[in-house]
Amino acid sequence: MHDHGLDDSRPAAPSTWPLDAWYVAATPGEIADKPFARQICGIHVVFFRTEGRGISALEDFCPHRGAPLSLGSVRGETLVCGYHGLAVDCRGRVDNMPSQRVKNFPSVRAFPVIERYGFVWIWPGNPAGASPEAMHPLPWAESDEWAYGGGLYHIKCDYRLMIDNLMDLTHETYVHSGSIGQKEIDETPVKTRVEGQEVVTSRMMDKVAAPPFWRMALRGAGLPEDAIVDRWQICCFSLPSHVMIEVGVALEGEGGYHADNAKKASSIVVDFITPETETTHWYFWGMARQFAVADAALTATIREGQGKIFAEDLNMLEQQQRNLLLYPDRRLLKLNIDAGGARSRLMIDRAIAQDRRTQ
Amino acid sequence: MHDHGLDDSRPAAPSTWPLDAWYVAATPGEIADKPFARQICGIHVVFFRTEGRGISALEDFCPHRGAPLSLGSVRGETLVCGYHGLAVDCRGRVDNMPSQRVKNFPSVRAFPVIERYGFVWIWPGNPAGASPEAMHPLPWAESDEWAYGGGLYHIKCDYRLMIDNLMDLTHETYVHSGSIGQKEIDETPVKTRVEGQEVVTSRMMDKVAAPPFWRMALRGAGLPEDAIVDRWQICCFSLPSHVMIEVGVALEGEGGYHADNAKKASSIVVDFITPETETTHWYFWGMARQFAVADAALTATIREGQGKIFAEDLNMLEQQQRNLLLYPDRRLLKLNIDAGGARSRLMIDRAIAQDRRTQ
Amino acid sequence: MHDHGLDDSRPAAPSTWPLDAWYVAATPGEIADKPFARQICGIHVVFFRTEGRGISALEDFCPHRGAPLSLGSVRGETLVCGYHGLAVDCRGRVDNMPSQRVKNFPSVRAFPVIERYGFVWIWPGNPAGASPEAMHPLPWAESDEWAYGGGLYHIKCDYRLMIDNLMDLTHETYVHSGSIGQKEIDETPVKTRVEGQEVVTSRMMDKVAAPPFWRMALRGAGLPEDAIVDRWQICCFSLPSHVMIEVGVALEGEGGYHADNAKKASSIVVDFITPETETTHWYFWGMARQFAVADAALTATIREGQGKIFAEDLNMLEQQQRNLLLYPDRRLLKLNIDAGGARSRLMIDRAIAQDRRTQ
Repeated sequence: MHDHGLDDSRPAAPSTWPLDAWYVAATPGEIADKPFARQICGIHVVFFRTEGRGISALEDFCPHRGAPLSLGSVRGETLVCGYHGLAVDCRGRVDNMPSQRVKNFPSVRAFPVIERYGFVWIWPGNPAGASPEAMHPLPWAESDEWAYGGGLYHIKCDYRLMIDNLMDLTHETYVHSGSIGQKEIDETPVKTRVEGQEVVTSRMMDKVAAPPFWRMALRGAGLPEDAIVDRWQICCFSLPSHVMIEVGVALEGEGGYHADNAKKASSIVVDFITPETETTHWYFWGMARQFAVADAALTATIREGQGKIFAEDLNMLEQQQRNLLLYPDRRLLKLNIDAGGARSRLMIDRAIAQDRRTQ
Repeated sequence: MHDHGLDDSRPAAPSTWPLDAWYVAATPGEIADKPFARQICGIHVVFFRTEGRGISALEDFCPHRGAPLSLGSVRGETLVCGYHGLAVDCRGRVDNMPSQRVKNFPSVRAFPVIERYGFVWIWPGNPAGASPEAMHPLPWAESDEWAYGGGLYHIKCDYRLMIDNLMDLTHETYVHSGSIGQKEIDETPVKTRVEGQEVVTSRMMDKVAAPPFWRMALRGAGLPEDAIVDRWQICCFSLPSHVMIEVGVALEGEGGYHADNAKKASSIVVDFITPETETTHWYFWGMARQFAVADAALTATIREGQGKIFAEDLNMLEQQQRNLLLYPDRRLLKLNIDAGGARSRLMIDRAIAQDRRTQ
Repeated sequence: MHDHGLDDSRPAAPSTWPLDAWYVAATPGEIADKPFARQICGIHVVFFRTEGRGISALEDFCPHRGAPLSLGSVRGETLVCGYHGLAVDCRGRVDNMPSQRVKNFPSVRAFPVIERYGFVWIWPGNPAGASPEAMHPLPWAESDEWAYGGGLYHIKCDYRLMIDNLMDLTHETYVHSGSIGQKEIDETPVKTRVEGQEVVTSRMMDKVAAPPFWRMALRGAGLPEDAIVDRWQICCFSLPSHVMIEVGVALEGEGGYHADNAKKASSIVVDFITPETETTHWYFWGMARQFAVADAALTATIREGQGKIFAEDLNMLEQQQRNLLLYPDRRLLKLNIDAGGARSRLMIDRAIAQDRRTQ
């Protein structure tokens, strides 16, 4: 008496994010001995770790009675549903169920997963395209010459508002006036260009005083915190929603961005932005730096400072989202400073159109 | 200047529960000197108790300005609205209102109510059919040879998911592994049959060790808690949504279910499941037992243990409901173990179809 | 690269409130050095105060990226968006933005505002009609012969339910039985009449004992609190949603409402009811009195007592609203006592119809 007619129709590709791409899903520590649930790109996913296969990802829905598989437990190489014991393997195939015939059961949808660069990555689209080569290279994540610290925020806004935010740092003067903002940001125009698969927006500020966060960094790098500096911000967007921002200050006249490591404090602001729903996302933020890499206390200090700064963005972005939902038909203005975000969204739209052709 | 055009159109019979049936609405202690509000089968009901008529039930809506009558107070044989003083009698007829002519006012909808077996019962359908004879007989509730203890949970899921849960105890191994679950449940097939107006699913496990809850029961019954036992579970569904489960353990080889009272610890798990909305219900749970009936401390211990066990179900059921709402079009699998729930739902569907013919 | 196509289409006039009218928006103290957000008549408004212009009100939406302007700050005579620094002036015109050309930007919608009578007033409709002459005159607010104390409640119900409540004080016997209610209210019929632009409902109760609130007032006025009194209630509704209630008690036979000030304790219950959404409103309540006007302690005592009384209404009104939403098609009864509310609603409906012709 089993009639298995599991409806495995996938949700139509939404209009707001590409599916054929590697997204950061979690940090490895989040997926320990218990199954772990997270919604990614609209899909409810259960992650679990086995000795033989490392981390796997399945749709979080037991085909038997619809319980979330994430309430179950790992047994050997299978994930066992916590309601009636149906066990699926790492590819989503039904493996066994006590006293029941389950050979012909439909499989649970499985997603390609890779653990790399200190993150767990998922490919929510067509598995055929999920090659490791399609991953964004992160040389700093595999080098001893870099130190990294970061965190995760759940933010109630469209992930693209975060991309806009990061591709236009003009907001630092207003949102982060106590840490990284300074009036020269407002006064210095940006340049935006598309380089291959990247959108790059850069702003160079010469001969300025360092704001509080950068005074702290100068101190950490063993440089005088009250020195006049040349400051730079180079924001790089790449698909599906990564923004790497090269930021730094160099002692005045030492070459700025190109100055010797000994004359500057520079780092990469790391932003992986993973859609959860149309109006919420997971924000994996951090900073990779090349100075004082062995100084764990500095890593903690930077992480704490960055956490406070991004909490300021969180509040502004959630209020902006709320306002946009109140006025859904309002068209917004696009200024020069918005070029980075506008170009990035164009690249996203093209990727979504490409998705639709392949799915 | 009164235009009374109260629209007393009843809500169309919903597709998910029968209306022509007695449901448990409350325990008598919940309805004391103040009016008491509870939503049952989608209807907002106010219960109140008077000296002359005991408990009455009306729609919780004052025909004057729409205030909930449950915010009012009892005066003699009437319920007085707490906003402007309109008073209705136990049958819902408008009785009086200071300085206003109310003789021709439409009545408030009234529902048949019976206090019996330690519960308050309501008939939400056509009052014509509401005979006390249609009540489910509960001999244990009127006999000194039984002890009873129980409780009430509000659960955010379709009441039929609870019926599925109780008609397939396979889940005990997974959801209740620390109390009543044991691997033999998984390994022993069930038998399901329809007997008159009941669906019966039974599982007999011979020569097993008693799990923790049953060790406690054996101790309470004055039997050795580490004895090898024959264990049984006989789940009986009857309309509209009652599940009585005969459960117990007998010393090995003494006849199991049919063993002498002195050789077994047996009881009835009592489950009255009353829909609140399409996705929530009131769960009146308890246990009636025939051993150590005078031992009030044992009653309390069992009640506490059972409360913990059913809280485990609550969590699983609410998560299952949430998942089913996320995937409304998914068809689920039906296995042998699901026969009890499937047959019960069939009986419910027929009762709903019958309802529609009479209303 | 700026394409400004700001969609300034205004929301269609809703069916539940007039727009061409002065509403109380706030008390002056709520609008200090930071911008202040409040939704009024469905519109999200930001209020801000500058040295040159006093209080201004704009739509709380930055035309650049949609952030709420209320997250920004006041700079000189402008409101500066807290996200990227777009500055608008008190009329909503875009004033400046660092390094961006903003001359041709569309304006933010601005609303006429007046600070008067101890309140901040807003005109949410067509600004052409927003003359100060259209304001409701409040002589007590500008006279040393009166004392005033009041407060603000946010209430989750249609603002018209509050008007009904205040235009039929029969509810005092039931909702406020411990303070201002007394059985004679129920027993004394009301008279309702339309006088020019006002609806007036009055009830005169001669030779009654004063209930607790009025005993306190008699004491405050230096009169014997246990005296037999003549009590009156004269409720006056005027557009858009103001209810001024003349209330008081005079020593028996001294002329009642017309008695000498020395023989009575009389006051005006002040109610400004400002819609927020279709099912919520802002309730500015207070009491203006002509006795013991220099007694600040008495003002505080009255304010506290009134606050408790109106909290009782709040609970009843929110429950009534909830019930009406559950039964949207139910028609309610209208009795003699409801005439004041019914006439007031009629006046509102005509004002809405008039609005539609002018907008």
